[in-house]
Amino acid sequence: MTPADLIDDLVSANHILYNEGVVDGFGHVSVRHPERTDRYLLARSIAPAVVTREDIMEFDLASNAVGAPGARPYLERFIHGEIYRARPDVHAVVHSHSPSVIPFSVTGTRLQPIFHLGGFLGAGAPIFEIREAGGAQTDMLIRSPDLGAALAATLGSAAYALMRGHGSVAVGVSLKQAVYRAIYAEVNARLQAEASRLGDITFLNAAEAANAAATNDEVVDRPWALWKMRVAGW
Amino acid sequence: MTPADLIDDLVSANHILYNEGVVDGFGHVSVRHPERTDRYLLARSIAPAVVTREDIMEFDLASNAVGAPGARPYLERFIHGEIYRARPDVHAVVHSHSPSVIPFSVTGTRLQPIFHLGGFLGAGAPIFEIREAGGAQTDMLIRSPDLGAALAATLGSAAYALMRGHGSVAVGVSLKQAVYRAIYAEVNARLQAEASRLGDITFLNAAEAANAAATNDEVVDRPWALWKMRVAGW
Amino acid sequence: MTPADLIDDLVSANHILYNEGVVDGFGHVSVRHPERTDRYLLARSIAPAVVTREDIMEFDLASNAVGAPGARPYLERFIHGEIYRARPDVHAVVHSHSPSVIPFSVTGTRLQPIFHLGGFLGAGAPIFEIREAGGAQTDMLIRSPDLGAALAATLGSAAYALMRGHGSVAVGVSLKQAVYRAIYAEVNARLQAEASRLGDITFLNAAEAANAAATNDEVVDRPWALWKMRVAGW
Amino acid sequence: MTPADLIDDLVSANHILYNEGVVDGFGHVSVRHPERTDRYLLARSIAPAVVTREDIMEFDLASNAVGAPGARPYLERFIHGEIYRARPDVHAVVHSHSPSVIPFSVTGTRLQPIFHLGGFLGAGAPIFEIREAGGAQTDMLIRSPDLGAALAATLGSAAYALMRGHGSVAVGVSLKQAVYRAIYAEVNARLQAEASRLGDITFLNAAEAANAAATNDEVVDRPWALWKMRVAGW
Repeated sequence: MTPADLIDDLVSANHILYNEGVVDGFGHVSVRHPERTDRYLLARSIAPAVVTREDIMEFDLASNAVGAPGARPYLERFIHGEIYRARPDVHAVVHSHSPSVIPFSVTGTRLQPIFHLGGFLGAGAPIFEIREAGGAQTDMLIRSPDLGAALAATLGSAAYALMRGHGSVAVGVSLKQAVYRAIYAEVNARLQAEASRLGDITFLNAAEAANAAATNDEVVDRPWALWKMRVAGW
Repeated sequence: MTPADLIDDLVSANHILYNEGVVDGFGHVSVRHPERTDRYLLARSIAPAVVTREDIMEFDLASNAVGAPGARPYLERFIHGEIYRARPDVHAVVHSHSPSVIPFSVTGTRLQPIFHLGGFLGAGAPIFEIREAGGAQTDMLIRSPDLGAALAATLGSAAYALMRGHGSVAVGVSLKQAVYRAIYAEVNARLQAEASRLGDITFLNAAEAANAAATNDEVVDRPWALWKMRVAGW
Repeated sequence: MTPADLIDDLVSANHILYNEGVVDGFGHVSVRHPERTDRYLLARSIAPAVVTREDIMEFDLASNAVGAPGARPYLERFIHGEIYRARPDVHAVVHSHSPSVIPFSVTGTRLQPIFHLGGFLGAGAPIFEIREAGGAQTDMLIRSPDLGAALAATLGSAAYALMRGHGSVAVGVSLKQAVYRAIYAEVNARLQAEASRLGDITFLNAAEAANAAATNDEVVDRPWALWKMRVAGW
Repeated sequence: MTPADLIDDLVSANHILYNEGVVDGFGHVSVRHPERTDRYLLARSIAPAVVTREDIMEFDLASNAVGAPGARPYLERFIHGEIYRARPDVHAVVHSHSPSVIPFSVTGTRLQPIFHLGGFLGAGAPIFEIREAGGAQTDMLIRSPDLGAALAATLGSAAYALMRGHGSVAVGVSLKQAVYRAIYAEVNARLQAEASRLGDITFLNAAEAANAAATNDEVVDRPWALWKMRVAGW
């Protein structure tokens, strides 16, 4: 995939995440540079739904902007840089305040795979408590490399992590996979919240979750084609 | 109804199920061949909302594709083939991950008719536990004739069955009836979940459910005309 | 208001009730004839969203069609005829399966005014149990004058009544008022269900409910203008 | 900002609040006059979604209309006038019946900041009980200067206040900030209601809430650009 094609997909990913209810005026999505693994691409500080090709900036892994002088970057770009640094397998990162997920970040209930499309949640999503790394007086944001590194440490080898009182991150080997995970973590959370009121839940076991995730990874082009069609012409 | 007209209706059913919130990027709907009862029609492996006439494939009851060489079929086409084999009365099948239904598949709460439009749920929807037929290490999918047959056995003579940690199947004597059932099972589930938080529920009794279902079957053209209008021009 | 203008408003009311989420493929709205109080106007048996001027039929209070030979009427037109017969003050009736209201019809929780816009609910909405008038083996529908009269008796002098396992009726001195009540009963029910999970609810007292209802009746043109704008051109 | 530009923004704010689900046929938003601090601008009594430049009226702080003879003002304009009188720092006021917030107004559960975007809620939103100022027989509306002053007293120095059985007010130093607060109070309420069913909630502490609010105030242009784009051309 050429850098130009990847930027097109990154713009689409921004629009898709808005259109599918994962981001609103806030949230962002990045992709690792296709030719330089020590760089990543991310929009300047604007709402995802209004991002165009011209808004895409390039950053090094310390989250310093490369080129594009003058554009204002997202305060929380360190989420992306530090995850790319810690996770060579990761090529795309979504940060959002996806609504059904946040309640799981502030209560003791673990977000777990309730159906096959949530298999990537594995044994449950880890929760990042910013007070541990940043103390009790932060503004909740990942506004430094240190906080980004602490979040990456909480994420570990997982596909998805919650951020207490804030939101979540979804990562993937590709934009499609990270977007898929951001969307279906939200769906899984909604289903789990509903089910928890009906009775005790039988979650996918470890083998079911891993096997379902592997199968779903093979068909991620199917929903992506739909999501992309819905934002065509934006 | 000619095969050509039926294919038009099948394409509409795909679009309707997306537009009414029953399927998203996943899920599928089939119809028994109008001239050969040992065949059925089902789209190739794409999202329902984007299905066109050209995407419709023909399968035998073992779920082997007939003609249309090269197109990739749904992994779970066996849901359709095995239900058609076991249920001569069934002429249409919807498989979905309809969101309000899934919580009932993973908890001990039985999905029952809470209002007249859910009368087809009868004494409650049976639940298919894939661990019984496929063991504890599946990927949750109905990816073989044996799993399809086990699902058909759980369905029995019912109109609707849940699949634990996965979704559901709705069947009917016609596309309109199967689509109606898929849509109103979702509505019924949402109402039941809400009502369960308010207090003990008076469900339709067996006679009320059967009588309401019979009456509703006579007016299924009414919502179908609306649903079809909403996807006209897709 | 001329009969022609009233029919235009009746068509708009059909579209509004769909667009605002009160009716789906089912449900209906009628208005008393502007020149003959022993007649009412109601669409033939089609989905409200697709009703046009040509679909409007005229009925006497026994719910026999007057003119318009050949068109199929709603099975449940007796809801309208019997309420008009019992309630001379009523000039419009909405019957719907409005989703947030149904859970209140099947549990012991009384639908009560939780905010000023639900003031018309007064001391709480009565519930019609069809088993009392029709026995335990009905199809749940108001398919006879007797059942319609029993429903009208349960409604009494109220503005709104629930029908167990089925839906509701909203009545008014005008189409605008009946539509307003159908829409805000749905909103009130959703708010009440949510609030009931947070703690004990302070409802409007009798004076607050009556006074708020009287005030709101004076400004019903305000939302009506919005609702009508949203369906302009249908 | 010129008065003409501010009126454009006020019209946009009306449309945005409808489009983002904060107001329906009811609710209103005002802005303090840019050149005379003892005046404010507010639409005549119509639904926010249909407001145009020509509908904007000017009021003094006693909520008497200045100019624009003949237009009917909102019954509850005293909400605006009395808050502007009591709070010189406030330059915009939103009054709404935003649905997720109302359940908190009628139960003992305090609306508190559950995520960083709700930081402006501080130690929790105060609740105005109209019975204390107006007795037990009001129509729930703020229809006099006295009731407006009592509401302003309950609001105190807060950014947001609930009104029992009615709705809420959001205030800000600018239209953008007041609209932001009206929208995210609704989101925060929905998240809090959901979380309360999952377990005990860790809310933002006082420092986190204050710091997050200060940070968010700096980026309010980001969602505003999105919201405005969505209503462009109305």
